[in-house]
Amino acid sequence: MSSNVAETLIRLGAEFHRRGWVLGTSGNFSAVSSRDPLRLFITASSMDKGRLTAEHFLEVEQDGRAVNGASGKPSAETLLHIAVVRATGAASVLHTHSVWSTVLSDVHADEGGFYIEGYEMLKGLEGVKTHEHREWVPILENTQDMKALAVDASGLLRKRPEVHGILIRQHGLYTWGKTLDEAARHVEILEFLFESFGRRKMMEPEPRAMRRK
Amino acid sequence: MSSNVAETLIRLGAEFHRRGWVLGTSGNFSAVSSRDPLRLFITASSMDKGRLTAEHFLEVEQDGRAVNGASGKPSAETLLHIAVVRATGAASVLHTHSVWSTVLSDVHADEGGFYIEGYEMLKGLEGVKTHEHREWVPILENTQDMKALAVDASGLLRKRPEVHGILIRQHGLYTWGKTLDEAARHVEILEFLFESFGRRKMMEPEPRAMRRK
Amino acid sequence: MSSNVAETLIRLGAEFHRRGWVLGTSGNFSAVSSRDPLRLFITASSMDKGRLTAEHFLEVEQDGRAVNGASGKPSAETLLHIAVVRATGAASVLHTHSVWSTVLSDVHADEGGFYIEGYEMLKGLEGVKTHEHREWVPILENTQDMKALAVDASGLLRKRPEVHGILIRQHGLYTWGKTLDEAARHVEILEFLFESFGRRKMMEPEPRAMRRK
Amino acid sequence: MSSNVAETLIRLGAEFHRRGWVLGTSGNFSAVSSRDPLRLFITASSMDKGRLTAEHFLEVEQDGRAVNGASGKPSAETLLHIAVVRATGAASVLHTHSVWSTVLSDVHADEGGFYIEGYEMLKGLEGVKTHEHREWVPILENTQDMKALAVDASGLLRKRPEVHGILIRQHGLYTWGKTLDEAARHVEILEFLFESFGRRKMMEPEPRAMRRK
Repeated sequence: MSSNVAETLIRLGAEFHRRGWVLGTSGNFSAVSSRDPLRLFITASSMDKGRLTAEHFLEVEQDGRAVNGASGKPSAETLLHIAVVRATGAASVLHTHSVWSTVLSDVHADEGGFYIEGYEMLKGLEGVKTHEHREWVPILENTQDMKALAVDASGLLRKRPEVHGILIRQHGLYTWGKTLDEAARHVEILEFLFESFGRRKMMEPEPRAMRRK
Repeated sequence: MSSNVAETLIRLGAEFHRRGWVLGTSGNFSAVSSRDPLRLFITASSMDKGRLTAEHFLEVEQDGRAVNGASGKPSAETLLHIAVVRATGAASVLHTHSVWSTVLSDVHADEGGFYIEGYEMLKGLEGVKTHEHREWVPILENTQDMKALAVDASGLLRKRPEVHGILIRQHGLYTWGKTLDEAARHVEILEFLFESFGRRKMMEPEPRAMRRK
Repeated sequence: MSSNVAETLIRLGAEFHRRGWVLGTSGNFSAVSSRDPLRLFITASSMDKGRLTAEHFLEVEQDGRAVNGASGKPSAETLLHIAVVRATGAASVLHTHSVWSTVLSDVHADEGGFYIEGYEMLKGLEGVKTHEHREWVPILENTQDMKALAVDASGLLRKRPEVHGILIRQHGLYTWGKTLDEAARHVEILEFLFESFGRRKMMEPEPRAMRRK
Repeated sequence: MSSNVAETLIRLGAEFHRRGWVLGTSGNFSAVSSRDPLRLFITASSMDKGRLTAEHFLEVEQDGRAVNGASGKPSAETLLHIAVVRATGAASVLHTHSVWSTVLSDVHADEGGFYIEGYEMLKGLEGVKTHEHREWVPILENTQDMKALAVDASGLLRKRPEVHGILIRQHGLYTWGKTLDEAARHVEILEFLFESFGRRKMMEPEPRAMRRK
């Protein structure tokens, strides 16, 4: 892993931990190291994301197994990272696990997701040019069968290639980017939108805008 | 830009980012560099405000274009900064994008704004001498037509020259000051008031004071 | 001012600012420098409490005026600090201005205060030996007449000498201690209790315990 | 105490204080120093957990008394730490005192606890392999009789040895681990779950999942 990528992931880990987005050993981060054959650097299983060092990452093959000679066990969610990279062409996938994403992923699970619209902050999402954008935030049911979850994510991204993130129910956010900086920006943007959407919802359960329509 | 102004803006960027007021690449900051002809230093487009350096600012003319030789693209909202400087004589304009300003700018959009009154903290706003002050917080509809938004802001500031900040719907706060320190103080004061006002509203939707009247 | 006291007040300013308890130029801190005649070191008017230096304090006489030769203007609320020191014998008075204290000081203003009871954290207040304590948190109406407010505070502390803090309506908390450390502890304890009390209230407006009675 | 253990407890104190989980002089931390006879290092009474040094810990015997020659007074809650170590075989016991744990410990006191289920974050608790886990969070009534509280905790842990933490009503969380790192992880996991559970409850008092059943 280039020392640049490692430094950035270590810094993001510390910052997201400070914000309470990767408490415990939750969350995991990956960056593509090779396109052909596909290989990723990914956080090792069960690491405290607030205090990562370069030794806490390892390289995995496209089947999710660690490359020969790598020490440590890849994150259990490696297959999900690979599925996202394959479907989106992303260079980096970041998984955070905040309170607001967790709460909303449960409140809206029955509808399979929710729309966020009208927020200027949406323009921080790649390719969005106006606040008059309707962003679908899909929610997948959680499961411990990581292969099944990877298949679900792949299917979802084929049907809705325009989304910028996926929530797993009571499990937080997966987002990604063409660059590591873009992926990091998407985390901040989406976490901001979740908190704003959640607080808005609590202030006035049925928004005026909706009543007008 | 004087190294003093640059240092202060860099410090404010880091601090506001830590507080979650300029996440993603949201927010932008400017400081007047010349009155005649009018010129501003302003943050370049799409920068992470938590990690600014002096290279992330550029100087713009009064028509919003970068001065000759400047590298980087000025923030898309440059015209709004210029409109505010022209209308108020401010030396600095700061735009933040917090959760509470975003939520309130939507909840009260239909009334075009809201009053904050009775708070001691209001005395932190320039020229306010008593907590028995009623501060009108105007809300402009958001648009991607920056020229139109600048015209709206100019018109608003002509009609209500006494205001200390403007909310753009679902887009956050613009505030300003005769000095950079005053502008920074206005950010802290207004963000505090928004959170207090919002939490007060949630605790008791119809305040007693209102019922008494 | 001893360099120890100065260092502690500077550190507390930075920490309370980080927590959002002294935003803008709100809040002020004092420490008794002499008992006879009574003199206090107090923060100068309009300082950013997050970035204090030793120069931002000045010594005042018991009538609230700066001692000869002191530069800077004492905080407008100096008389209130002096009234509290006289009534309680405190060595330090700290005024913070948090969102939760501001909200609760308004919600309960009509009753002149509110009781906090049953919290283990109450034992952090000087002299409280059990969580089965009922702490009265008095609220004074805000006024810009500082002499009147000082008289109100003196009268209140004569009638209720057992209280550990006073809220001024929509204006935050005054607390104190026999030592600077005790005063600082009281700030943390009371701010914790305000947030807990406020969130408890929002979760269940009429608590079960109350219904049982 | 090994300098490693001391360093970790000092760092945890600073971090938990920053998050508002051990304000005032609340909270206390212990680490087993000897199994036979049982001895613990524990924070001295009334210390600011945000600024601990190695001198703020002392060693105690299994009856809760300081070992010969130790200076300082052990935390009043030493007996509770010892009861937990005896019942669970833990190497470390951490007591935090956050707003959310305090609020929930009161709201659910009448039922003696509450279940948290369906959260992926539960897998951060030792031995939990799936999010389809139901974690019972027991609540003990608070008392100043520490011997009685220690007996209550022992009885509870005999009946429900599978729990990972205990709430004391309006008094916060006790959790533990086979290692100090595991205990620290349990603090972060449980505090995250309390906030998520609490905010979920506030967003929709009667969750859909419950209505479906």
